[in-house]
Amino acid sequence: MVITARPSYARIYTALEELRTHEGVELQLVVAASALLERYGSAVSVMEEAGFKIDRQVYMILEGENLVTTAKSTGFGLAELATVFDNLKPDMVVTIADRFETMATAVAATYMNIPLVHIQGGEVTGSIDEKVRHAVTKLADLHLVASRKAAERVIRMGENPDSVVVTGCPSIDLAQTAVEAEPREPAKILSGYGGVGADVDVSGGYLVVLQHPVTTEYEQAFSHVSETLEAVREGGYPALWFWPNVDAGSDNTSKAIRGFRELHDLPNVHFYRNLTPLDFLSILLSSDCIVGNSSAGIRECAYLGVPAVNIGNRQRGRDRGGNVIDVDYDRNEIIHAIEQCRSNGRQERDLLYGDGTAGPRIAEALATATLSIEKILPY
Amino acid sequence: MVITARPSYARIYTALEELRTHEGVELQLVVAASALLERYGSAVSVMEEAGFKIDRQVYMILEGENLVTTAKSTGFGLAELATVFDNLKPDMVVTIADRFETMATAVAATYMNIPLVHIQGGEVTGSIDEKVRHAVTKLADLHLVASRKAAERVIRMGENPDSVVVTGCPSIDLAQTAVEAEPREPAKILSGYGGVGADVDVSGGYLVVLQHPVTTEYEQAFSHVSETLEAVREGGYPALWFWPNVDAGSDNTSKAIRGFRELHDLPNVHFYRNLTPLDFLSILLSSDCIVGNSSAGIRECAYLGVPAVNIGNRQRGRDRGGNVIDVDYDRNEIIHAIEQCRSNGRQERDLLYGDGTAGPRIAEALATATLSIEKILPY
Amino acid sequence: MVITARPSYARIYTALEELRTHEGVELQLVVAASALLERYGSAVSVMEEAGFKIDRQVYMILEGENLVTTAKSTGFGLAELATVFDNLKPDMVVTIADRFETMATAVAATYMNIPLVHIQGGEVTGSIDEKVRHAVTKLADLHLVASRKAAERVIRMGENPDSVVVTGCPSIDLAQTAVEAEPREPAKILSGYGGVGADVDVSGGYLVVLQHPVTTEYEQAFSHVSETLEAVREGGYPALWFWPNVDAGSDNTSKAIRGFRELHDLPNVHFYRNLTPLDFLSILLSSDCIVGNSSAGIRECAYLGVPAVNIGNRQRGRDRGGNVIDVDYDRNEIIHAIEQCRSNGRQERDLLYGDGTAGPRIAEALATATLSIEKILPY
Amino acid sequence: MVITARPSYARIYTALEELRTHEGVELQLVVAASALLERYGSAVSVMEEAGFKIDRQVYMILEGENLVTTAKSTGFGLAELATVFDNLKPDMVVTIADRFETMATAVAATYMNIPLVHIQGGEVTGSIDEKVRHAVTKLADLHLVASRKAAERVIRMGENPDSVVVTGCPSIDLAQTAVEAEPREPAKILSGYGGVGADVDVSGGYLVVLQHPVTTEYEQAFSHVSETLEAVREGGYPALWFWPNVDAGSDNTSKAIRGFRELHDLPNVHFYRNLTPLDFLSILLSSDCIVGNSSAGIRECAYLGVPAVNIGNRQRGRDRGGNVIDVDYDRNEIIHAIEQCRSNGRQERDLLYGDGTAGPRIAEALATATLSIEKILPY
Repeated sequence: MVITARPSYARIYTALEELRTHEGVELQLVVAASALLERYGSAVSVMEEAGFKIDRQVYMILEGENLVTTAKSTGFGLAELATVFDNLKPDMVVTIADRFETMATAVAATYMNIPLVHIQGGEVTGSIDEKVRHAVTKLADLHLVASRKAAERVIRMGENPDSVVVTGCPSIDLAQTAVEAEPREPAKILSGYGGVGADVDVSGGYLVVLQHPVTTEYEQAFSHVSETLEAVREGGYPALWFWPNVDAGSDNTSKAIRGFRELHDLPNVHFYRNLTPLDFLSILLSSDCIVGNSSAGIRECAYLGVPAVNIGNRQRGRDRGGNVIDVDYDRNEIIHAIEQCRSNGRQERDLLYGDGTAGPRIAEALATATLSIEKILPY
Repeated sequence: MVITARPSYARIYTALEELRTHEGVELQLVVAASALLERYGSAVSVMEEAGFKIDRQVYMILEGENLVTTAKSTGFGLAELATVFDNLKPDMVVTIADRFETMATAVAATYMNIPLVHIQGGEVTGSIDEKVRHAVTKLADLHLVASRKAAERVIRMGENPDSVVVTGCPSIDLAQTAVEAEPREPAKILSGYGGVGADVDVSGGYLVVLQHPVTTEYEQAFSHVSETLEAVREGGYPALWFWPNVDAGSDNTSKAIRGFRELHDLPNVHFYRNLTPLDFLSILLSSDCIVGNSSAGIRECAYLGVPAVNIGNRQRGRDRGGNVIDVDYDRNEIIHAIEQCRSNGRQERDLLYGDGTAGPRIAEALATATLSIEKILPY
Repeated sequence: MVITARPSYARIYTALEELRTHEGVELQLVVAASALLERYGSAVSVMEEAGFKIDRQVYMILEGENLVTTAKSTGFGLAELATVFDNLKPDMVVTIADRFETMATAVAATYMNIPLVHIQGGEVTGSIDEKVRHAVTKLADLHLVASRKAAERVIRMGENPDSVVVTGCPSIDLAQTAVEAEPREPAKILSGYGGVGADVDVSGGYLVVLQHPVTTEYEQAFSHVSETLEAVREGGYPALWFWPNVDAGSDNTSKAIRGFRELHDLPNVHFYRNLTPLDFLSILLSSDCIVGNSSAGIRECAYLGVPAVNIGNRQRGRDRGGNVIDVDYDRNEIIHAIEQCRSNGRQERDLLYGDGTAGPRIAEALATATLSIEKILPY
Repeated sequence: MVITARPSYARIYTALEELRTHEGVELQLVVAASALLERYGSAVSVMEEAGFKIDRQVYMILEGENLVTTAKSTGFGLAELATVFDNLKPDMVVTIADRFETMATAVAATYMNIPLVHIQGGEVTGSIDEKVRHAVTKLADLHLVASRKAAERVIRMGENPDSVVVTGCPSIDLAQTAVEAEPREPAKILSGYGGVGADVDVSGGYLVVLQHPVTTEYEQAFSHVSETLEAVREGGYPALWFWPNVDAGSDNTSKAIRGFRELHDLPNVHFYRNLTPLDFLSILLSSDCIVGNSSAGIRECAYLGVPAVNIGNRQRGRDRGGNVIDVDYDRNEIIHAIEQCRSNGRQERDLLYGDGTAGPRIAEALATATLSIEKILPY
């Protein structure tokens, strides 16, 4: 299995846990690209602490963060991974989602005649990721998809239905763990994390806010996040705001939030940095609703039944459950949607993205697959 | 436009001719991979003789001819092409078919945010080429396909119907030139080419034989070609046999033919090496039928109305017209099919692969395209 | 000319200025590696602002900052530069000093049969740079060296004396400009730069302190810089302390300085970030002495006649003038040396590293060189 | 140890044999570049037949055989070898001579901080190899040289005398084996090899001829080899002529020999292809003299005491013993020199290139070396 980024690792974690002890499976881990780098959270260290043995490390990111370096990184990564696959001689190569490293992995496995397993195909998002995701589908020999709709799309693209397995998304497995865990008071969970901003009383309900950048321009980032800040301020509900993860674009969003705070009082908002995934899910589970553009609102909250106000088009195209209200970057729309969420209350659990058993299902699918590298379009 | 092999150049030639003078089009040529190498016929020299200006040459083939080197060549080629596209800044990148260089070109253009045009998508062949061809379809923004069926497949895979244009295959353009040319006597055409084997009288009709290797093992290559040789010998019809082009596998087929000739008399067969494309098509046009596994039997002969005995599964999956009889590697089946072809006589012209205007259509499609790099699966 | 880092650009600046108008010279600039990257000061932007036309940009640094990525970056850079040299077809390639990009440039030029000019060969420093510098000397066809001693070493390594030109170091050219400029009051120069720390009265003389990290371990970095901080604090002289440039190791030195400031009062020290090169040299020129481990103490101050207290072994092996007192990381040694410097006063100008005409000399040497790529060891 | 070509393997063979059983040495073999390729004699197969375990195979030659591809191959090879060294974690890396793969190996080891051992440094030949050889010397930490003169040159270039060991050239070890072997009649040795040309009676003495191409132009290759052919024909002595190994340039030399043979009778010359190294040395040992431009005339024949007529400048700069007479491409000079050789008869054994114990000496030097990657120019 090739892991190339911290979020990919987090998402696939329960499957990895299952695979490392699954009978009949020998797990080889190749860690590559940003998963090796400090400034992206060094997933490799997290993995080693979790007890995983890393078989190969592949440095492939050329500095510069522009179009040329992304294309070149894909090429050099592909060339490196060919060597790695030739050394490790795996029975299959497993790759995740739609990053440039996913493309490099898929092409390398294809030309090495090694069956390719693709996790998270068949989803719809637009942008360059969309092209890459579907191209990888056409290279893959086994498709482990998150939802029934994704399965249907993969099959319509011409893949053999026998090669498509709906496993659900492993991120839901952790949501289920949060649901099943001993209930904990939000205030207690939060007490260990510090953060900045107002003292917020969460005993009577609260919002969770998480807004990632969709632009690299400061002006636009400021205008986007300001609408949400205004809505939260005007509404006056207790709110827990989580900073976006550090990457290129999010610097501007963080800067915009800081700029807003200097100009305005925010007596009902406390800002947090990294909670552990499980703590975050527990906080989410007890919240009134999630606001912003995080995939957690679409995926985990469908399972948790937590209402979500989804702002802008970052999640455009993603299948969504009944818990989601889509709004534009507009404070009034946002306030109105939050009101609606609060009055609707907790939703039915929607198994759209899985039932919490994706890890074992993925492991089982990999352990029992009889893979061929031959395929042919059926129409 | 990226040209990476001599056959690709031959196939696209009429489009290139059209493009270099087409109003509103500035043609930039990147010649890469085997098209630069002597031992693959140095397409680059042929192109320069034909008056084309080559903008960039990209060496990308790592010696070794195995799975690892193919994967690595794809990676290094991708990295190189990124630089080339960054230097040339084309409005679109045009790539052909399903070779590993096609994949490198497509991924490089995708990550450089340059619209990608794919020629010859939507065809069905099996094997690794099949995966690569459809993956490139998912990366491409404009699809110039050879046949209506290919168009239909591309659309079913989720491409926007507005982005799919049936241009026909430019190889048919040359077939049309042969049809329209002043008729010439086959004996006269052949007199300039020498060759080896018996003196064959072609005035009363003749077969054209062209059989490419589908294996790299000598035993199998020998057994495959022997059935055809036996069938032609037993049938006793005048036959013009064309040696396969020199590449890895074809050495064994050539060796097998030579071995057979040492053991058996072939009083009705003359062997030829390279005819010019137009001379070859004229010879084909006057023949009773074509025997073997060349794509010419499937593509050009559909247009020419020349019957074809197609042996084995090299052309499996390719759409075919009524001119084709498929047989196994079996001398009796082959003899029987040749008889049938001869008694059926010339077929109706089938425009399955185009009507001889692919060059201008491709040029027009490229000149008038309004391309976007954004696309989204419609289902 | 290949520029790969901001310090290289600064050092070579006067030669570039000269070359861009020098008769008979066409200057082509290839900017590569860290010179393209924001977090290393984006030399490319500085160059464009200075009016230089950049012919090619080459991204070659693989993220990861370890031994493997450095080796790989050298390899990928070499492969890229081969394409660049093939496109630009220069009469000669000029490379500077002893970085891994210098090695990549030198090997690429060698195998492309392009004469190689090496600037700053023949110096002695130890460590991996030492190996690379002398290996580049053995690949180079023309050597433009900073000092007579460097020339002698290059010749002893077997280079043809006719291929070795002592031009002096172009960094001295700027020092000369500072000397010849209208004298300006230090207080006025500094008033535009802000900075942090105590208000310092520089009218009665002052120290300049500049200490770069020689280790990536925090403990050691702290202990190194603390000795200097203690010495400066105890001595009580007005001091202008310049933060090290941001790079991997210097983060720890900066952190150590901040840590020290939290624990101790520093009533006689003001801290500055970036002065323009010329302002910095003017400040240096008016100072009592420079303290730390900067090459400015060895090179520019030899010319300026400013005494230097050189701490530790960062400048080990570099030829030095009479202005330098070497000491260990020891506050007492440092205090003692500062006292000595102050009592000795301004030194004789030492032309060891040049007389301020390196730029024109380099330009002239390049314009008039008749280069051959053939050479042979004379012994 | 990194082996990149068949001749390098042949030359180092006795050292490898010694190393694989030497106490305290674990031999890791990396086979790369042309040593992996069929058309260069697939040294890797020969090595596996000889029982060597190959630890890694590195494909690094980009097809095209021109300046750009050579430079790029060096770069890609360097990047690959970094991964290999990172995986294998050797205590030292051993590289041979002065090929582009030698450079790639040396730079990779340098940046990976692995001590580098260089075999065959300090020799003088001119051309690009000369630059590369001495640059590798400046990167290497231990120098195992063939001759005392080579040692002296390496030291004069600034290397520490303690790091230079005169081992002799391992090619001499095989010459010694030939000397010590049971004497065998030349006619018997040759009887197994076939070949083409006249029946030659070798019982009364004979010449050995071996002439490699020094040019890739046919006209010049023809003119060079014709002078030798004429000289041999006119002289009328029984001659055994060995075809050059197949590589780019030698095709023309072979073609020129064939052309000459069609025009002229050569009643005293028999042509042979590959003898085993030991058989070739036995034939050499019994011959009157060797004619041509092979390194065997300079190296092995110095030890064997066989006179050599060395034609042209292919061996220019190489140290030579008293057995060599240098001549130009001129039939009269050649005839005259052959006469002189025959009248002089067998020479004194010259231990210039070793005494036949290079293998064990190299093994011992590697087993006992205490290597450091730190070095500094002593002058």
